[in-house]
Amino acid sequence: MHNQTLILIQCKDSTGLVSSVSNVIARHQMNIVSMREFVDEANQKFFIRVVCSGVVEHVDGLQKELEQNLPPQADVVINPANDKKIVVLVTKEHHCLADILTRHFFKTWNATVEAVIGNYESLQEFTEKFDIPFHHVTHEHKTKETFEAELADKIAAYNPDYIILAKFMRILSPTFVAQFENKLINIHHSFLPAFIGANPYRQAYTRGVKIIGATAHFVTNDLDEGPIIVQRTKSINHSYDVPRLISAGKEIEKAVLSHAIQLLTEDRVMLQGNKTVVFE
Amino acid sequence: MHNQTLILIQCKDSTGLVSSVSNVIARHQMNIVSMREFVDEANQKFFIRVVCSGVVEHVDGLQKELEQNLPPQADVVINPANDKKIVVLVTKEHHCLADILTRHFFKTWNATVEAVIGNYESLQEFTEKFDIPFHHVTHEHKTKETFEAELADKIAAYNPDYIILAKFMRILSPTFVAQFENKLINIHHSFLPAFIGANPYRQAYTRGVKIIGATAHFVTNDLDEGPIIVQRTKSINHSYDVPRLISAGKEIEKAVLSHAIQLLTEDRVMLQGNKTVVFE
Amino acid sequence: MHNQTLILIQCKDSTGLVSSVSNVIARHQMNIVSMREFVDEANQKFFIRVVCSGVVEHVDGLQKELEQNLPPQADVVINPANDKKIVVLVTKEHHCLADILTRHFFKTWNATVEAVIGNYESLQEFTEKFDIPFHHVTHEHKTKETFEAELADKIAAYNPDYIILAKFMRILSPTFVAQFENKLINIHHSFLPAFIGANPYRQAYTRGVKIIGATAHFVTNDLDEGPIIVQRTKSINHSYDVPRLISAGKEIEKAVLSHAIQLLTEDRVMLQGNKTVVFE
Amino acid sequence: MHNQTLILIQCKDSTGLVSSVSNVIARHQMNIVSMREFVDEANQKFFIRVVCSGVVEHVDGLQKELEQNLPPQADVVINPANDKKIVVLVTKEHHCLADILTRHFFKTWNATVEAVIGNYESLQEFTEKFDIPFHHVTHEHKTKETFEAELADKIAAYNPDYIILAKFMRILSPTFVAQFENKLINIHHSFLPAFIGANPYRQAYTRGVKIIGATAHFVTNDLDEGPIIVQRTKSINHSYDVPRLISAGKEIEKAVLSHAIQLLTEDRVMLQGNKTVVFE
Repeated sequence: MHNQTLILIQCKDSTGLVSSVSNVIARHQMNIVSMREFVDEANQKFFIRVVCSGVVEHVDGLQKELEQNLPPQADVVINPANDKKIVVLVTKEHHCLADILTRHFFKTWNATVEAVIGNYESLQEFTEKFDIPFHHVTHEHKTKETFEAELADKIAAYNPDYIILAKFMRILSPTFVAQFENKLINIHHSFLPAFIGANPYRQAYTRGVKIIGATAHFVTNDLDEGPIIVQRTKSINHSYDVPRLISAGKEIEKAVLSHAIQLLTEDRVMLQGNKTVVFE
Repeated sequence: MHNQTLILIQCKDSTGLVSSVSNVIARHQMNIVSMREFVDEANQKFFIRVVCSGVVEHVDGLQKELEQNLPPQADVVINPANDKKIVVLVTKEHHCLADILTRHFFKTWNATVEAVIGNYESLQEFTEKFDIPFHHVTHEHKTKETFEAELADKIAAYNPDYIILAKFMRILSPTFVAQFENKLINIHHSFLPAFIGANPYRQAYTRGVKIIGATAHFVTNDLDEGPIIVQRTKSINHSYDVPRLISAGKEIEKAVLSHAIQLLTEDRVMLQGNKTVVFE
Repeated sequence: MHNQTLILIQCKDSTGLVSSVSNVIARHQMNIVSMREFVDEANQKFFIRVVCSGVVEHVDGLQKELEQNLPPQADVVINPANDKKIVVLVTKEHHCLADILTRHFFKTWNATVEAVIGNYESLQEFTEKFDIPFHHVTHEHKTKETFEAELADKIAAYNPDYIILAKFMRILSPTFVAQFENKLINIHHSFLPAFIGANPYRQAYTRGVKIIGATAHFVTNDLDEGPIIVQRTKSINHSYDVPRLISAGKEIEKAVLSHAIQLLTEDRVMLQGNKTVVFE
Repeated sequence: MHNQTLILIQCKDSTGLVSSVSNVIARHQMNIVSMREFVDEANQKFFIRVVCSGVVEHVDGLQKELEQNLPPQADVVINPANDKKIVVLVTKEHHCLADILTRHFFKTWNATVEAVIGNYESLQEFTEKFDIPFHHVTHEHKTKETFEAELADKIAAYNPDYIILAKFMRILSPTFVAQFENKLINIHHSFLPAFIGANPYRQAYTRGVKIIGATAHFVTNDLDEGPIIVQRTKSINHSYDVPRLISAGKEIEKAVLSHAIQLLTEDRVMLQGNKTVVFE
């Protein structure tokens, strides 16, 4: 994104919005490199993501001009942070974390992993290989309130753009979720809304399904009900027992979660109610 | 399957079953062309499907000999009917029916479509192009009992191996289902167990999923809960409204249902409780 | 597409094109329902497909106004024919044809199959079920020139928008191809550029690949080298012999070809040199 | 594989082979947990992979007994090494290596990465985080013979079961390949046989394909022509330029290579001429 300007707009739908936006961009002597727009007709909402060539000098001026040419209360973002700060929460499983830390180490994302927090110490040694601080915050011998307060403190210290629940196996309270609104990203090990809750692979085995999947989604107060960002599935057959389902599932989980993080770090995901608009 | 013998066995698991079966086959001077077996350890059940070269002269003798060398109550089937009789039930949507009738017409399956029964007349003209009888059995102005009794009569007259619900949009009663145990095959327009029941594409739209799918399954008394035969999914995005979801879904539905019928007509599907063993 | 206007533009890239186009649209009191654009930077070409709400009264005026606001030689198309005329060429295989005729019969495409031409009579009976004329043009006992001249005559009589080679197993000469530039669509039974030419499934078997595929593409003078519209693949394994590869391949072929025709009839495909821009 | 015995057999096809094998197993008081067999009819070859419960005491006795009951020159392997030794060759790209080292570190495979050898130093720091020796063997300022001799020395010192070319960007000579017959595994960044040789993503871009892929295969003297183990593809569209193709391709490459290594370490791959039999 060198010498480029990224503009994200979300507003009430109305006539001539593409024209208004592209005129403002043209007046600023920028050329449109790529433009993706979407009209949610059911909710009368307009979404647009524009990449322009040329660096804008007066971002505030551009922002004001765009807002003046759009319906009231338009949400306009110009050049969001292009090095997102990420905190990763884990329990004991390593596969998602390892994929994330590798991409951090080789800088394949516009993102920096600031810290990893585990409710067990299992992944401390691995994390520290990458010179990333690991904090052990146990949930044992304390109330959920205390545990979550400690967790929130640790997280808040890094002021992250996103908190990635990379197979973090604790259910978070509405109070906790509210503190990090639109920042908590979870990987659920099923193709939601199938198999909400605990042990989805056990549920899948019992039901005898012929596909399994994984879902990366924003966390809201309803368990596994938040806006979905990425889903993927894999065909299986009768010979998969629960351990093999888990093993096959891990490959999908890490691919899906990393894909979702990539989309987020490239500012390709916009929220609309309980759904996402993803400009891939 | 010319000059070949097909053997299907399902029994309690035990030591030496493959050895027992293959010895009997060898004693009958037949060679094993392909063999697929599966042990369901949780239920201590053994499944095997063997294709042998050579036509067996005394099927009864082979059957008896196999049973003598297997655990009690073994279920042994030799050379099941290789021209399955099929009756298709439809409502108004044509895509699954058209795919089935085409394969019937060009004899791509070991199956004959004996009749099509519709609760509307919409698909009569199309069906009759293929010289297949179409029966109109309306559900209107009568009780569910009467409707199902008429339906059952029409079906029973053809003594079908399978009754294919090719987008048949009526829920069938336990009484009806019991009459045709293990013969009713449905296509459900979602990747079960997600979106059970009515309007799955509307449900998928509302939930904001990023994949849709379809499921072919045996019909049991629990709505959309029967043993799954085939499932497939397709990636979608935020721009799919309900009509486009329905349209994309139809492509999956017809592929999944036809795939399931092909497996059934090749005797590749075995039932175990609420699950299937599929030897593909 | 009721009460909508479709605009397709292809021109030299330049600054402010989206702005120019959207301003003209706004001046005509139309709202943009969906807009997809693409800049081919290597060739400095701009492509845009815009769906607007509202029916334009003076198409000529709109066309002229757009051209005046775009670089010279811009290719502007407004409301292309929304009932495309299609002629289908076949040999003996039915699977692609059957899928096409079904969609014709149930009007699932913005297209009408005007005629089917076969170099064998095998598919005449099936075609005529749908009340579509079938012409038998044999290639036997005559020169290629004569055969192609007869074929071209038959085709030209229908003045089709697209000629679909639905498993038409004759190689066409450059002279023939030149007569129907950008109108000939072929389904090749491999994932091109792998396995160009004859017997791709035999080639795939010999090579021991683990995926097979199919490709729908425009026909040019170089065999199997024209612009690709749609490709899809399917995983296979060592147990697939050539007949089973062919059988599995047919499922992909018909899905890929029908998908390509759908894209063409919705005017979602634009040509750029030997490649396509597909606005899905 | 605790308390289990694995038997792999490859021999000339003949009548009663399954019976012979299963009888020997039964005489040794072992039960068949899973059995997969394949008859290559074109080459009259028989392949079988049997997992038995129970640990065999006299492996030599079992081996001899099996050989006596099979056609001459049968290739019988009982309990191949279940901790395969692996040496990885790299150039500068990290994605495949990182995935391999992660699985090594967390012991998700029956394999140990003994060493990594790079013709550049780029991946030394990363490799050493995992306490694995990294050898830098440059190809610069020396003949190909010298380079390959040094490489072969380094590799041979570890006596590996498999040498993984994890994006190793040097073409190896027949002399080198002959030294490590059936042990060299390469990841090629296209769905072979499409785009053999250099810059497959550039080739894919120029051709305008709609799918890209990757292939894991044994290395033979013919460049990119060795037996294929795993292939996978991904759909793309016109908007992918070469860098984005490369980036998307890396995800497939690492998944395909790791999948192939897993199959090899579980002894699920058998060679037959220039093809593989993969018992998944």
